[in-house]
Amino acid sequence: MESDGALPAPHLGGDMQNFNVPPVEGVAGGGTAYGWEHEDIGPSHLTNGTIDPTKVQSADLLHVWCMPSTANVGQQESPRPLEPVALLAARNERESIQIALRPKVSWSTSSGIAGAVQIQSTDLCSSTGERLVVGKSVTLRRVVSILGVPDALVPLDAPVSQINLFPGETSAIWVSVTIPYDQPPGQYEGQIIVTAMKPDAGRSAMPYLSRDEKHQLYKELKSCLDVVEPLDDKPLEEAVNRAKYATSSLRNILLLPTFVECRDDHTSSDAMDEDNIINPSISIKLSVTVWDFTLPLTPSLPAVFGVSETVIEDRFCLQHGSQSWYDTLDRHFEWLLQYRISPFFCRWGERMRVLAYTCPWPADHPKADNYYSDPRLAAYAVPYLPILTCTDTAKDSLRREVEVLKSKSHWKKAYFYLWDEPVNLEQYDTIRNMSSEIRAYAPDARVLTTYYCGPSGAELSSSTFEAFVKVPGILRPHTQIFCTSEWVLGSREDMVKDIVDELQPEYGEEWWTYVCLGPTDPHPNWHLGMRGTQHRAVMWRVWKEGGTGFLYWGANCYEKATVPSAEIRFRRGLPPGDGVLFYPGEVFSSSNEPVASVRLERILSGLQDIEYLKLYSSKYGKEAALSLMERRGVYLGPERYTLDHGPIDLMRADIYQACNFGTRIPFA
Amino acid sequence: MESDGALPAPHLGGDMQNFNVPPVEGVAGGGTAYGWEHEDIGPSHLTNGTIDPTKVQSADLLHVWCMPSTANVGQQESPRPLEPVALLAARNERESIQIALRPKVSWSTSSGIAGAVQIQSTDLCSSTGERLVVGKSVTLRRVVSILGVPDALVPLDAPVSQINLFPGETSAIWVSVTIPYDQPPGQYEGQIIVTAMKPDAGRSAMPYLSRDEKHQLYKELKSCLDVVEPLDDKPLEEAVNRAKYATSSLRNILLLPTFVECRDDHTSSDAMDEDNIINPSISIKLSVTVWDFTLPLTPSLPAVFGVSETVIEDRFCLQHGSQSWYDTLDRHFEWLLQYRISPFFCRWGERMRVLAYTCPWPADHPKADNYYSDPRLAAYAVPYLPILTCTDTAKDSLRREVEVLKSKSHWKKAYFYLWDEPVNLEQYDTIRNMSSEIRAYAPDARVLTTYYCGPSGAELSSSTFEAFVKVPGILRPHTQIFCTSEWVLGSREDMVKDIVDELQPEYGEEWWTYVCLGPTDPHPNWHLGMRGTQHRAVMWRVWKEGGTGFLYWGANCYEKATVPSAEIRFRRGLPPGDGVLFYPGEVFSSSNEPVASVRLERILSGLQDIEYLKLYSSKYGKEAALSLMERRGVYLGPERYTLDHGPIDLMRADIYQACNFGTRIPFA
Repeated sequence: MESDGALPAPHLGGDMQNFNVPPVEGVAGGGTAYGWEHEDIGPSHLTNGTIDPTKVQSADLLHVWCMPSTANVGQQESPRPLEPVALLAARNERESIQIALRPKVSWSTSSGIAGAVQIQSTDLCSSTGERLVVGKSVTLRRVVSILGVPDALVPLDAPVSQINLFPGETSAIWVSVTIPYDQPPGQYEGQIIVTAMKPDAGRSAMPYLSRDEKHQLYKELKSCLDVVEPLDDKPLEEAVNRAKYATSSLRNILLLPTFVECRDDHTSSDAMDEDNIINPSISIKLSVTVWDFTLPLTPSLPAVFGVSETVIEDRFCLQHGSQSWYDTLDRHFEWLLQYRISPFFCRWGERMRVLAYTCPWPADHPKADNYYSDPRLAAYAVPYLPILTCTDTAKDSLRREVEVLKSKSHWKKAYFYLWDEPVNLEQYDTIRNMSSEIRAYAPDARVLTTYYCGPSGAELSSSTFEAFVKVPGILRPHTQIFCTSEWVLGSREDMVKDIVDELQPEYGEEWWTYVCLGPTDPHPNWHLGMRGTQHRAVMWRVWKEGGTGFLYWGANCYEKATVPSAEIRFRRGLPPGDGVLFYPGEVFSSSNEPVASVRLERILSGLQDIEYLKLYSSKYGKEAALSLMERRGVYLGPERYTLDHGPIDLMRADIYQACNFGTRIPFA
Repeated sequence: MESDGALPAPHLGGDMQNFNVPPVEGVAGGGTAYGWEHEDIGPSHLTNGTIDPTKVQSADLLHVWCMPSTANVGQQESPRPLEPVALLAARNERESIQIALRPKVSWSTSSGIAGAVQIQSTDLCSSTGERLVVGKSVTLRRVVSILGVPDALVPLDAPVSQINLFPGETSAIWVSVTIPYDQPPGQYEGQIIVTAMKPDAGRSAMPYLSRDEKHQLYKELKSCLDVVEPLDDKPLEEAVNRAKYATSSLRNILLLPTFVECRDDHTSSDAMDEDNIINPSISIKLSVTVWDFTLPLTPSLPAVFGVSETVIEDRFCLQHGSQSWYDTLDRHFEWLLQYRISPFFCRWGERMRVLAYTCPWPADHPKADNYYSDPRLAAYAVPYLPILTCTDTAKDSLRREVEVLKSKSHWKKAYFYLWDEPVNLEQYDTIRNMSSEIRAYAPDARVLTTYYCGPSGAELSSSTFEAFVKVPGILRPHTQIFCTSEWVLGSREDMVKDIVDELQPEYGEEWWTYVCLGPTDPHPNWHLGMRGTQHRAVMWRVWKEGGTGFLYWGANCYEKATVPSAEIRFRRGLPPGDGVLFYPGEVFSSSNEPVASVRLERILSGLQDIEYLKLYSSKYGKEAALSLMERRGVYLGPERYTLDHGPIDLMRADIYQACNFGTRIPFA
């Protein structure tokens, strides 16, 4: 129904002035509920003509609201009220939220663009003057969709950058606060300021103060200073005139478009003055409580992640072993450490042979120690070189590697990953042979073997759970780290006991797990399109089940390409996102820094959750921690975990209250 | 598997030169089929550094391919080979195709943009020098997604414009060729040229020759002319020197970036010369056969479409009856006529009363005849003014309208649309009263009534098909156009006979149909997200079932807004796209020209198909036309119509061959 009490058709001109049709709403047919959901954005400052965003409150032009890091904020996400953000973070922890933006109207004259907005972040400051510095501790990244799913996080310039909004589309900015290891605890406050920009500025403006603007500004300020500096030795009248002139110059400088985003603290009182709006921005208050807990530099749970050497060589056109090859591997290694994961580079040989190595340099190379001794590295793969060829040279080289490494204090972090998912006795024999060779050089070496079934050709049918659970008996003592697929468990958490019961921890045997193709929805995994809490739940699961390590096969395993900026294509036959946790930066900008996925950020969050749970357990026991997780509804099992973010924050707050200085009584 | 025969790990340096690992492909686990789908875009001109698109074939940078107008080309559409386009079109017909573009690599330095491309269209020329002029007969529009579905067609500048491509996203350009009514038949050839642009050009370049470029060019050419013009009265030596100088100047002018897209006919022989690529463009050959058939200016099937007056008034902040109100209605009327539809403006009164009028001016106003006499208008709604208020003034005014109109030759196109979907006897009585009043002034007036059920309160249960089919008996002689919902039929085409059997065509009674909320998938309708052929099939269905007219309730019925560029929101409770066939231009650019949906273009195509089928029927009978439609698999019933475009083109070609000059023997 569209009746709205307005004057009817014009056929009768003035004659119809006294008609009065009451507005009546209907339910069926054509005009269904016209205006029912009417949210009047008000004609206050918006007229029928071109919209000048500097003359209008940005809030009249776009919706801005916040979403948690576990939300997948797609293009069709609906606006919510804007509320201040309050985060809790430990030192050496990263917490993230998302800012969603959606145009209410279009104010750009560029075809297809609703408008440009400038996004500026301030430092976060404590009352005692401590700072979390923007661009360093506070970063902003644009959330870019991959196969229609928000996933890639493309860095924005700090402290100010500019993005385009599109009609009918929600855009999202990923805001991360990374607390330095030595940051003083306390309350830090700051804001993120969103300002709709003029169409022309949107076209030509640099993301922030351009070189030209900077030079011009410097010049103007300098000339202003030149006017007043020699004031002392001038006659009074001249000095006054000079000062007046300088004042006027300064005023003009501050009115430059460059400063539009700086002018917002004066204006709250003017907000009602329609003719003089000089604060058009939307401000998001951001408060971070840094508490007196430091996440250990070395992650408590070794999470080892594969990085395909082959993919890097192909895409970046690198000659194996060249200087730029080493540089690129270096960069990947360093970049991945921030995610609390322990990278290993890998190359696949025949069948499922795998060459896995954390450090591209020989153990006796001066650079090797930088890799192996990095406190952020929880575990490292030692290359078993004969895997590629069985010459004496390769064997010698292996012996040399092991002999160097086994004398170091970091040797306890070492493992050998020789074969991926052996499936028959022949492959088991190969593992035994390799393991024997390694253990001849270092009896305490650890061999990691991944598997999801028993070997075929053995007495038990390989596909039974019994065959799977008996693998340690077959591989002992040639494997120390029994790394099984979470897929095998299905929703049967109780089978964890069966697996663990077969192990001999007294002889250093460990149970690790992995995910890859499986398990699939609704179980936790990192495929594109899964819920955010489903991504984060992988680590909750690991912690609950009690595995002492985790392996992921590949973080950069896209389809082959030979140009750095080539389109990313997922590999055929794999679920989208499987084996891909970051993207080449070149695809999205001229930067060569890898672009993280939101899934990688959620992996980090999960690994951080483990440190929180471990802290809580250390004070109140693992049972209490499990009970807390359950009481808050965070994670109860692979098919029972929270779909919303709320319980996560509540659980973290519980742990904070229970463990902060020990001054409060825990709920448990 | 990632084995690729490259040299293995660098631990052994030169020692490993003679290793040779054969490439072996596996099926399971981590490295699944690395490089299997490898499509090498070749490192030929692409290096590890920044990509300069002027030095590289555009085909190395992006995929370009064509799609039919019935394809919904989403962001994830996969590339296909580029093939030349050949279209068949009658005079006064519009045919459209889509050009899809997807970056293979990123060559822009702007964050989040893969690269910019320039799109240029030439005129289409016949061998005898006739032209289909770009910007007029040939138009390009960018396909913009609405709720994630490609739908809005935002005009691009002609003949050259520029768009940005995004990493991992397919973009689409909608190319329409509209054949003027008096275009000579023949074969017209032209091309659309896609050129990857330099990152910086992508930022600042104007869509086409800017004012500055134009002035500079003029200046350079002028000065060149100045050098040679006074040649005659100069000594020989000087004349030669001047000519040499002019030649060199001209050469330089032609090498300006401005002309990059004009230089492509010289270069096929140079294409192999890697150091001298001066034709980086991708050219799409476009050929249109204009045949000797003219679609009638006045559509054979009246398709009357509602345009909400209320929505226009609200969004464009127009005072009812003001000059800009008339201008805006004018513009909508004129714009919609190109789609072979007959618009009526409408406003909804209490319950389902509706005021529907095609012309906002009184019948005796000089402007009214421009509306009513337009040959493109197949039917017009005469306002029944007392619907809003029952004063004597309103009644007088109605009488005056009818008396003026009934004397005109266009009166046969007139109808009265008084009530939408009456559902009980009280509403039937109201229709009877209004109809009696109208018919007292003009006994041959036609009243249109929409309905989908019988009246409640009558002897038959209103929800039965029998009650529905008996409506004409109840409304006779107060309704002449019985307009029923296609939803009622379900997949029971056979029930058409039951409906039609109740009518008395000898007394001017007609059967029209409509779609709105229903029918839903898989039946033909115009909701967003349906298949392209499903959109086009609405008119195939009308033609097959034999209705003599069609009504659609609303073409602009978005949710209320009071700013022209406000976000478009679909109304609550309606399927997305229902009641919305075009968008306000202001949402997408600074233009106030409405932006068509692809659905509106497919409606036009369907209405054009009706003219083809009518032509064929006129020569070979309706049975033969139905049989052709069926043989080609175009349309067999509301659940059996082609999902692909191919059969449509084949059917059109059949009709062309059967009807062109009558020189060929039809298949039927």
